[in-house]
Amino acid sequence: MNNLSQLLTDNQFNAVYNMLSLGLASMLFTSVFLYISRDRVLPRYRMAVIISGTVTAIAAYHYFRIFDSFNHAFAGPANNPYAYNVGYRYVDWLLTVPLLLVETVAVLAIGRLAQKALLGRLVPAAAAMILLGYPGDAHLDLFGISAPVWGALSTIPFLYILYILFVELTKSLERQSDQVRATVSRLRLLLIATWGVYPITFILAMNAEGFDAMAFVNREIGYSIADVLAKCAYGLTIFKIARMKSAEDSAEFAESEFRD
Amino acid sequence: MNNLSQLLTDNQFNAVYNMLSLGLASMLFTSVFLYISRDRVLPRYRMAVIISGTVTAIAAYHYFRIFDSFNHAFAGPANNPYAYNVGYRYVDWLLTVPLLLVETVAVLAIGRLAQKALLGRLVPAAAAMILLGYPGDAHLDLFGISAPVWGALSTIPFLYILYILFVELTKSLERQSDQVRATVSRLRLLLIATWGVYPITFILAMNAEGFDAMAFVNREIGYSIADVLAKCAYGLTIFKIARMKSAEDSAEFAESEFRD
Repeated sequence: MNNLSQLLTDNQFNAVYNMLSLGLASMLFTSVFLYISRDRVLPRYRMAVIISGTVTAIAAYHYFRIFDSFNHAFAGPANNPYAYNVGYRYVDWLLTVPLLLVETVAVLAIGRLAQKALLGRLVPAAAAMILLGYPGDAHLDLFGISAPVWGALSTIPFLYILYILFVELTKSLERQSDQVRATVSRLRLLLIATWGVYPITFILAMNAEGFDAMAFVNREIGYSIADVLAKCAYGLTIFKIARMKSAEDSAEFAESEFRD
Repeated sequence: MNNLSQLLTDNQFNAVYNMLSLGLASMLFTSVFLYISRDRVLPRYRMAVIISGTVTAIAAYHYFRIFDSFNHAFAGPANNPYAYNVGYRYVDWLLTVPLLLVETVAVLAIGRLAQKALLGRLVPAAAAMILLGYPGDAHLDLFGISAPVWGALSTIPFLYILYILFVELTKSLERQSDQVRATVSRLRLLLIATWGVYPITFILAMNAEGFDAMAFVNREIGYSIADVLAKCAYGLTIFKIARMKSAEDSAEFAESEFRD
């Protein structure tokens, strides 16, 4: 992957560059906003908000690294020795996806024991999904298994997680108030729509032979858009749900936080 | 846009350099001030103050990047490979303008449902304005449409947003107390005066053939002044309105916050 500085056109370079900067800014300031706004919900919902802010904070760090790595690999002189690091995204997901599962389970309106049982199934599946996906995306043939097969193996836990979350979010709708129900229902759609982008992006990039500039650009932009939606938009929706539930739980809170 | 280091005179370089630094400092410390001062208003006004602080925080990040990009493109050796990135301002606006709309709607003294309906019209218009404006400002002929036409298309949602906000702020004057009314009226003028700078700057830079140093300097200084007024001065005025309203809502708050 060396000497990439001549491989992208100016427009391709700028598109990826600005998308990565947009991703970094979105992650960083969603975190700042969520951390500072944590007192705008009742104490019982603050952990979910703090975890949502931590997800985007971890992602902000990795976007900073990805941005830097992209710059070094593509903007240097010809024959520069820097390679673009595909690993950052996977390290990021390894840390953030379990936390995303925790924040999702927190809004299901189920007891603590049921939450624990659910996470006991989802978190190992998430680790398997990410660890199996990496050799596929990095085009490695590990243990005699080819890259596309790693990708296919990663899809099994991926579909399992998505199925469980969708079913659980759907079941939780009955337990929510009318007002919260509409937002949780949107959260469910956001989950399917954003998680769906990852395998599509993965498969599109998979077909490339050697270095294909267009496939590279699509992969980076696709993953970045999916990340912003799956982490920032998702975390802000969790915050919104927490705020609505707070107002429903306590008339005093509603009175002090809202005008009407 | 390469090899720009010999294109500006020392005075032109210093003028842009110092203006960008002024923009960065204004954004950064308005955020710090607003974040730290959020408890100086009643809880119901804190979201508006936090959002105002987040707008300037996002802008501070982008001014840091713009400053860096300007330095790399213009202060490097001849034949340096770095281009000045026009994209940062548009990425910044894409994130901050919707938030500026949220903070403005928050001081209109209307119910939550009416706020939601208003934002449902304004936010898509803001996205359209910025996405249509970028090809114009970056001198791109995308989809066979020339750059000036992109600029003209962007003006339609721009005028729509400004018209709606001006009308709504004017209508809200009746609902405000005497004291708040004067400040909301000034906010309305600030909105028209600062938003008006953007299309003027855009048009002045549009006429340049190739790279025109004076047009470049005017563009950077014009956008920076407009940004500082539209984000810092605007956000601080929102804070002032929130503080006046807090004192009116609660005698206890007024007593604890003010000497008289």
